[in-house]
Amino acid sequence: MLKVIVNGCFGKMGRVLTKCIEQDPDLELVCGVSPSQKEKTSFNVFSTMSDISKKGDVIIDFSHHLALDNVLSYALNTKTPLVIATTGYNEEELNKIKDASNIIPIFHSSNMSLGVNVLLKLVREATKVLNGFDIEVIEKHHNKKVDAPSGTAIMIANAIKDVLPSIEYNYGRYGREAKRSENEIGIHAIRGGTIVGEHNVIYAGHDEVVELKHIAQSKDIFAKGSITAAKFLVNQSPGYYNMDNLLS
Amino acid sequence: MLKVIVNGCFGKMGRVLTKCIEQDPDLELVCGVSPSQKEKTSFNVFSTMSDISKKGDVIIDFSHHLALDNVLSYALNTKTPLVIATTGYNEEELNKIKDASNIIPIFHSSNMSLGVNVLLKLVREATKVLNGFDIEVIEKHHNKKVDAPSGTAIMIANAIKDVLPSIEYNYGRYGREAKRSENEIGIHAIRGGTIVGEHNVIYAGHDEVVELKHIAQSKDIFAKGSITAAKFLVNQSPGYYNMDNLLS
Amino acid sequence: MLKVIVNGCFGKMGRVLTKCIEQDPDLELVCGVSPSQKEKTSFNVFSTMSDISKKGDVIIDFSHHLALDNVLSYALNTKTPLVIATTGYNEEELNKIKDASNIIPIFHSSNMSLGVNVLLKLVREATKVLNGFDIEVIEKHHNKKVDAPSGTAIMIANAIKDVLPSIEYNYGRYGREAKRSENEIGIHAIRGGTIVGEHNVIYAGHDEVVELKHIAQSKDIFAKGSITAAKFLVNQSPGYYNMDNLLS
Amino acid sequence: MLKVIVNGCFGKMGRVLTKCIEQDPDLELVCGVSPSQKEKTSFNVFSTMSDISKKGDVIIDFSHHLALDNVLSYALNTKTPLVIATTGYNEEELNKIKDASNIIPIFHSSNMSLGVNVLLKLVREATKVLNGFDIEVIEKHHNKKVDAPSGTAIMIANAIKDVLPSIEYNYGRYGREAKRSENEIGIHAIRGGTIVGEHNVIYAGHDEVVELKHIAQSKDIFAKGSITAAKFLVNQSPGYYNMDNLLS
Repeated sequence: MLKVIVNGCFGKMGRVLTKCIEQDPDLELVCGVSPSQKEKTSFNVFSTMSDISKKGDVIIDFSHHLALDNVLSYALNTKTPLVIATTGYNEEELNKIKDASNIIPIFHSSNMSLGVNVLLKLVREATKVLNGFDIEVIEKHHNKKVDAPSGTAIMIANAIKDVLPSIEYNYGRYGREAKRSENEIGIHAIRGGTIVGEHNVIYAGHDEVVELKHIAQSKDIFAKGSITAAKFLVNQSPGYYNMDNLLS
Repeated sequence: MLKVIVNGCFGKMGRVLTKCIEQDPDLELVCGVSPSQKEKTSFNVFSTMSDISKKGDVIIDFSHHLALDNVLSYALNTKTPLVIATTGYNEEELNKIKDASNIIPIFHSSNMSLGVNVLLKLVREATKVLNGFDIEVIEKHHNKKVDAPSGTAIMIANAIKDVLPSIEYNYGRYGREAKRSENEIGIHAIRGGTIVGEHNVIYAGHDEVVELKHIAQSKDIFAKGSITAAKFLVNQSPGYYNMDNLLS
Repeated sequence: MLKVIVNGCFGKMGRVLTKCIEQDPDLELVCGVSPSQKEKTSFNVFSTMSDISKKGDVIIDFSHHLALDNVLSYALNTKTPLVIATTGYNEEELNKIKDASNIIPIFHSSNMSLGVNVLLKLVREATKVLNGFDIEVIEKHHNKKVDAPSGTAIMIANAIKDVLPSIEYNYGRYGREAKRSENEIGIHAIRGGTIVGEHNVIYAGHDEVVELKHIAQSKDIFAKGSITAAKFLVNQSPGYYNMDNLLS
Repeated sequence: MLKVIVNGCFGKMGRVLTKCIEQDPDLELVCGVSPSQKEKTSFNVFSTMSDISKKGDVIIDFSHHLALDNVLSYALNTKTPLVIATTGYNEEELNKIKDASNIIPIFHSSNMSLGVNVLLKLVREATKVLNGFDIEVIEKHHNKKVDAPSGTAIMIANAIKDVLPSIEYNYGRYGREAKRSENEIGIHAIRGGTIVGEHNVIYAGHDEVVELKHIAQSKDIFAKGSITAAKFLVNQSPGYYNMDNLLS
């Protein structure tokens, strides 16, 4: 029975996570932490990490980058392994995370979905061996999404560019003279309805196509991914871990 | 045994068509017509329609819009039904075709693929009944294609706009503030490898998606479509026919 | 403001429906009806239709075929239009529904998803015009689904068979001598994870393929469909209506 | 300029290969070998390997397993690297190939498509890391294909079984009690029209799906793959090579 503390329990992802933990028979939700006004919950909620009365085996953090010091100092004081799923850290904050990982095990990823990370890994592999194939990235999301393309599509494109540095991104092919150049990746943002999230990478060569695709059906996958990370992390020595460690 | 005359037999589509006719046991290739210098062929080739020595049951025209007078006067003189698959006619030429169709049966379509025309028909139906669904068009072609989006993608978008006149086309969604507006269709041109041609229309609503897709594997489909049109046309009275007549 | 009574409010679909009604600003949930023991709800619940104290504009029924008499007599007594989404009726029960529809408007469908019904309509159209194309049906559902293929896949196959009566169903193509016969439809049941439901109909011809696909993301679509039916029904004269009326 | 000898030049794949070689500016087609009666060709054809008058840099073999001794003895005598794309060898023949590879570089694969081999590699990776995901294999081919599922689908399933030995294959899920078992892979053979070949591997987990897909547009890909293998092989020391060497 793994005892979990959730920092940021009243954010969108925090709510999904606490629900997933409560449904998982292998997990016990020790408490949540949130500065927001308290709601009625089936678990204890503290307004700050230092108020926590009972130790956990691991902390999962879906909070805000400004809450980093608070969670890091608690984790270091109590020697509790820490899974960080929060995004938006600046370089100074990232260095604090790295420093803390000399003392406790820290798992840090800006996308906790196991499937998306597997996709990224496979994209790196495929890009290395499918020489001369044209690569295009197509993502689909709901009609309320403000940015285009998605952050994950950009992560995918960057993973391709790591292998093929001369690649450039083309976000809207259009015109009577719009022939594809050899060193471009077309990135296409489809929007409609309530589509949760799809990412499709197409490698088109001479008379054959390879496609790698991820389809998300709910935000649960990010919560589940952080739980998988937590289960992995509690068995590790101090160090800085990410999805690559989980997948290799 | 349907006897077919092919006008424009040495163009890209003319070559595909004559090969398809020769392979079809129900068809006899009477002759081809082309102003180009003669190549060695298994069938007779005349440099102009008026030189043709033996009557056919139907003419299939994959030539050039400037060759219209030549093919029309032969068809009218010999009362031969005429399938016109040539594109690029101006209004005056279109009127000549309409006029001639008072005397002989004429089948005219700028896309002879049966499948693409079925797709267009289904798109019109779906657009009428899927109220409030967001529509997006995705097409894929080979990396040598110069224009984006494809002519067929534009035909599809126009078919949607016929039903929903307030719709506007968005060819490249991009940016931090790029939220979909309610009355737009995103049109996306994927390019890569040797993909012959795919057109996918997505209707995304609340928690459900309907997709209508056409995949072309070769240019044969345009030749085969014109043959299907020819077989249909020889049984018709004088008049102006198109794919809608074939499909209803 | 359409006033809705929900019969069968504590079944799986009843719960989804009452939630959807409460979120729709155009609708008012008058009350629910259920013989089950009462739970705490934000709306009134009666144990039987005859106990209802306040009239509604329309009844939506997601209950059990044995509850038919109860809901019909209430609807007839109060002249309330009735949407029936319950399944499993025998012939005698179906006749009772038809009889009642001489007096009040009744909408009856065993699949309330707008998208699935549009798919069925398009499948009928496509099957009529894509002569000689090979048709295959592929459906995907979660790994807990007991039956294979899905009821909707069978509805689709039957819609095809209405157009092409000589067609036979092949549920598992396998072997060294398993060549496709011309008059068969392959029906394939993919199972995995938590896939809500996909139905894909493939028309494969010479060098071209047409695909018609429906993807469900949640059970909401059946609730939403019944609401759309209810909004349609309140403006109709007495009669027996189904999705075809809604879509034409 | 790589000089290539083609053994089996009048078989289905031999014809595709000689055409591809003639179109590749980096390659010279030294000669073909075939016991069949000679046709008019643009290159020299010998009826047996020992008749070849001019040395090549590499031999590509798309012949018949019974022709093995002939091609091996020529390759060993002339120390010419050998790409073997022929299938159907028995154990004794396979041992002869292995033995010869102590003396000359030999590349041997029963599927020469680069894309299919990349798919296989990615499938092995994905299967290792997507623990608890349900895997299903869907393949599509033309309506003339006799066997179901395809040999490539079986290669894919076997690659999955190498990682998950307890997996069993289910070729036709059907019935009222047909729930998926945890340790099965559904393998589905779609047949229709002139589809060249598609293989799709679906990993379905909790609220997410990863899909890996290969689409073949023509038999050229097997010829091109053997050419890629040939270019790789001429730079190698004696040894037994396959697609894994090419892709790593």
